[in-house]
Amino acid sequence: MTSDLEIARAATLRPMPEIAAKLDIPEDALIPYGRDKAKLEAEFIAGLDARETGKLILVTAISPTPAGEGKTTTTVGLGDGLSRIGKRAAICLREASLGPNFGMKGGAAGGGYAQVVPMESMNLHFTGDFHAVGAAHNLLSAMIDNHIHWGNALEIDARRITWRRVLDMNDRALRDIVVSLGGVSNGFPRQTGFDITVASEVMACLCLSRDLTDLQERLGRIVVGYRRDRSPVTCAEIGADGAMVVLLKDALQPNLVQTLEGTPAFVHGGPFANIAHGCNSVIATQSALKLADYVVTEAGFGADLGAEKFFDIKCRKAGLSPNAAVVVATVRALKMNGGVAKTDLGAENVAAVEAGCANLARHIANMKKFGVPVVVAINRFTADTEDEIAAVRAAAEAQGVEAVLCTHWADGGAGTEALAEKIVALTERPSQFAPLYPDDMPLLEKIETIATRIYHASDVYADQKILNQLRDWEAAGYGNLPICVAKTQYSFSADPTLRGAPSGHTLPIREVRLSAGAGFVVVICGEIMTMPGLPRHPAAETIGLDAEGRITGLF
Amino acid sequence: MTSDLEIARAATLRPMPEIAAKLDIPEDALIPYGRDKAKLEAEFIAGLDARETGKLILVTAISPTPAGEGKTTTTVGLGDGLSRIGKRAAICLREASLGPNFGMKGGAAGGGYAQVVPMESMNLHFTGDFHAVGAAHNLLSAMIDNHIHWGNALEIDARRITWRRVLDMNDRALRDIVVSLGGVSNGFPRQTGFDITVASEVMACLCLSRDLTDLQERLGRIVVGYRRDRSPVTCAEIGADGAMVVLLKDALQPNLVQTLEGTPAFVHGGPFANIAHGCNSVIATQSALKLADYVVTEAGFGADLGAEKFFDIKCRKAGLSPNAAVVVATVRALKMNGGVAKTDLGAENVAAVEAGCANLARHIANMKKFGVPVVVAINRFTADTEDEIAAVRAAAEAQGVEAVLCTHWADGGAGTEALAEKIVALTERPSQFAPLYPDDMPLLEKIETIATRIYHASDVYADQKILNQLRDWEAAGYGNLPICVAKTQYSFSADPTLRGAPSGHTLPIREVRLSAGAGFVVVICGEIMTMPGLPRHPAAETIGLDAEGRITGLF
Repeated sequence: MTSDLEIARAATLRPMPEIAAKLDIPEDALIPYGRDKAKLEAEFIAGLDARETGKLILVTAISPTPAGEGKTTTTVGLGDGLSRIGKRAAICLREASLGPNFGMKGGAAGGGYAQVVPMESMNLHFTGDFHAVGAAHNLLSAMIDNHIHWGNALEIDARRITWRRVLDMNDRALRDIVVSLGGVSNGFPRQTGFDITVASEVMACLCLSRDLTDLQERLGRIVVGYRRDRSPVTCAEIGADGAMVVLLKDALQPNLVQTLEGTPAFVHGGPFANIAHGCNSVIATQSALKLADYVVTEAGFGADLGAEKFFDIKCRKAGLSPNAAVVVATVRALKMNGGVAKTDLGAENVAAVEAGCANLARHIANMKKFGVPVVVAINRFTADTEDEIAAVRAAAEAQGVEAVLCTHWADGGAGTEALAEKIVALTERPSQFAPLYPDDMPLLEKIETIATRIYHASDVYADQKILNQLRDWEAAGYGNLPICVAKTQYSFSADPTLRGAPSGHTLPIREVRLSAGAGFVVVICGEIMTMPGLPRHPAAETIGLDAEGRITGLF
Repeated sequence: MTSDLEIARAATLRPMPEIAAKLDIPEDALIPYGRDKAKLEAEFIAGLDARETGKLILVTAISPTPAGEGKTTTTVGLGDGLSRIGKRAAICLREASLGPNFGMKGGAAGGGYAQVVPMESMNLHFTGDFHAVGAAHNLLSAMIDNHIHWGNALEIDARRITWRRVLDMNDRALRDIVVSLGGVSNGFPRQTGFDITVASEVMACLCLSRDLTDLQERLGRIVVGYRRDRSPVTCAEIGADGAMVVLLKDALQPNLVQTLEGTPAFVHGGPFANIAHGCNSVIATQSALKLADYVVTEAGFGADLGAEKFFDIKCRKAGLSPNAAVVVATVRALKMNGGVAKTDLGAENVAAVEAGCANLARHIANMKKFGVPVVVAINRFTADTEDEIAAVRAAAEAQGVEAVLCTHWADGGAGTEALAEKIVALTERPSQFAPLYPDDMPLLEKIETIATRIYHASDVYADQKILNQLRDWEAAGYGNLPICVAKTQYSFSADPTLRGAPSGHTLPIREVRLSAGAGFVVVICGEIMTMPGLPRHPAAETIGLDAEGRITGLF
């Protein structure tokens, strides 16, 4: 079997001006980064406003399992399928984080014959966006401690600084540290830590901003800590927002690459999918919608988290109106949601598929609550039997939606032509999209709405301290923000072992955090790790260059 | 008066293929990074070996003063002057560090009409090389703590880990920290810290490597700490060298930009000039020498430090044979070396110039000890009087060298034509270059040789601990390494207030460090700061974008 890496390396990439020309992007609107990557110039993007907006298709999935669903692969495959049936299509994906590739092996953007390339560069420094996010984040960190060192005119309570530092590296030693040791010239010692760069609120700000002005305003609103009287101290008060936006000037311009079949792909931004909203940038999606007739994008995790945040945070805030949602399922993953262990996936098990379809059915029903038409994509594996596939089709039909069999992993865009035709049909009527809750609903009520309507929880548990914090934020003017839930991706509940479609559980809130710059309140339900560690034998130990100078061990 | 920034912004940059064509670099050997920067492809560089080597000219300076000498400006001006008189010339400079620009304002590469552009990008992320160095450095850091966390098979003594972490940011809070707090899953707490990225030994390795294989070998040799029995633990034992070289694959390819007059400029690498050797990369210099007939480069600080390290570390290790040295002086700086305060520089003071010329004379004499022909460049300021200039000329002539008046700051390359002609004449005969001391001289004797012959010290002071350490390293096979002295740049002595040409002083060694990967022993004489802090009012507070989206406050 040919690996993703072999397929990607065997591909002949088309020159970037040729890819851009498919969307009528003139060559002088491209800023080259190497030979197979380019940024789209801000001035060109600013001139697109008056154009018509294309159709926006979200690719989401059932609750993920170790069996794999293939959400990104389907996003790429659908883009290529739309191109093949003669539509002007583009894909929008997130960028990959560099650090984690040195722990576990890096990944393709997609898989098989449905990939975005150049694969190696996209797993390494790419166009430097994440380095820029890190630099902007850490400049603010340095300026906070510097402000206190030189007299603390803002009267920041050093015990209540919430702004940490970031690094795009899996480094557990930096999770919990004491800084400013060594005497007077090094400042005031205090406890803090590092997160991985993708967990930075700067990343979320970058990904939700319309333009540089919007970005600077968001950065300025970031709350970095509190005074003794609990009043918030912002990034603008520290005076870092201007310099940060200068550091992010190039990073805000979306990156253009290509699929193996030459479909234009905007790969831009990569906020965490737990403590942030987990979607590619608004500016990339909006630019793509002005340039293509069909824009296919994805959101992190299963539809309960990814699609909900895509709709309630990204679409709400950016004024996007998605026209359709594709829920990706595999027979294997449905079996696991139906209670089968990973080791037993080889055998046909129609009953387990039917049981697992409870998960699929609920995600379909949830999507409809946003007014978005749904189609199910069955990402076919060779071992899937006809009866298993028929069970999935039947479950989808019971929800009034079609399930389309897709073979893009093996066949590229030729394997998603039927799905592409279905998407064209589904998106003919104007979008009826509406977010789940209004802006002016109280914060706790928003959380309860998501918990009961999307997760089918019976109630939400929050202690008094959390309730007080939510009320304090409402009093401080943050009550109109949407909610960003950080919970396990493996279940509708907060318990990762509850697969399928659990109901009647309690959603326990462990902690709440304010992302005032990005513009949401983070609700943490369970253990959330914002700085990964390296395993006993990190991938880095075997990564290197071979005699021909090619990278080995990264994939 | 027009500022450097205004001049740089008013410039019309030529397309990179046009700049490359001046050195017969084909367009397909260029990897574009934006519109006005490119990297030179490794495969193209590998094919240059058989070509003839051009003339190498080092621009160095008298002992620096707050009056300014204009070493980079003269490097750029001389490159443009050589181009103007019809020579195929190239310039090699270091890259600027990003972090410090947010403390004090950033700087031009050169000044007036002798600048390298694009100025803004070169002060920000440029082509991402420094971010790559930081990532490679911090991957090794994470792998060291990870190794100990998972059982410490190498038996590293956690108290003797010398490898720190780096960030390209002025952040005093990170100088001295305790990591791995928070319990079992975060590792073993220990004290360590961050340096600024340019202080990383990875940067020095990158800048001294011939190619990727050489780079990986150097990285592998880095000593990261010691066992209880004092035996060194290397990066190769940690298993990080392969992954680090993958992270540095693109960064090792030299960056090509241009002067305001279109002379090709290789701007690549930027090791600290105190604890490292302070020169641009070997690979850039060697590539330039194969592509141009005259290559003008510079070294950090005054000639006692910069030129000495350029000759004894970079040229020795890379097999470079410099053909001439330009010692840059200004009347103002000579006056300060002659005892005048900065506030009194306005008035003519021939006696002070004459007194300060003792400094110039010693630097000239020192350059001759390396067998390199010397010319003095007087970087003219408008307030300089004819008598003051005559005094400089006379002092140079007393050493048997010519002093050439240059007006490149005001006139660009037209202001250095005389200097360029002089360089052509001086470099006609083959290089007689030889380093100051042989490889096999004992380490202490090498230090004494530099101290007495270059600094005119009468002796070197080192306590028993330092002497033992030097002997231990000799026993471990590091005795053949050259010496990299870290001392004040303002004096031949270790006392920054002793301007002019002091003699008979003692050079006190405070600490010695092994840079086994870069390949030198660092001898620290005095206080050396490897992580700067931000001032009370950092430049970052006023940096931002104006209404037209242009960067303000950075310069």
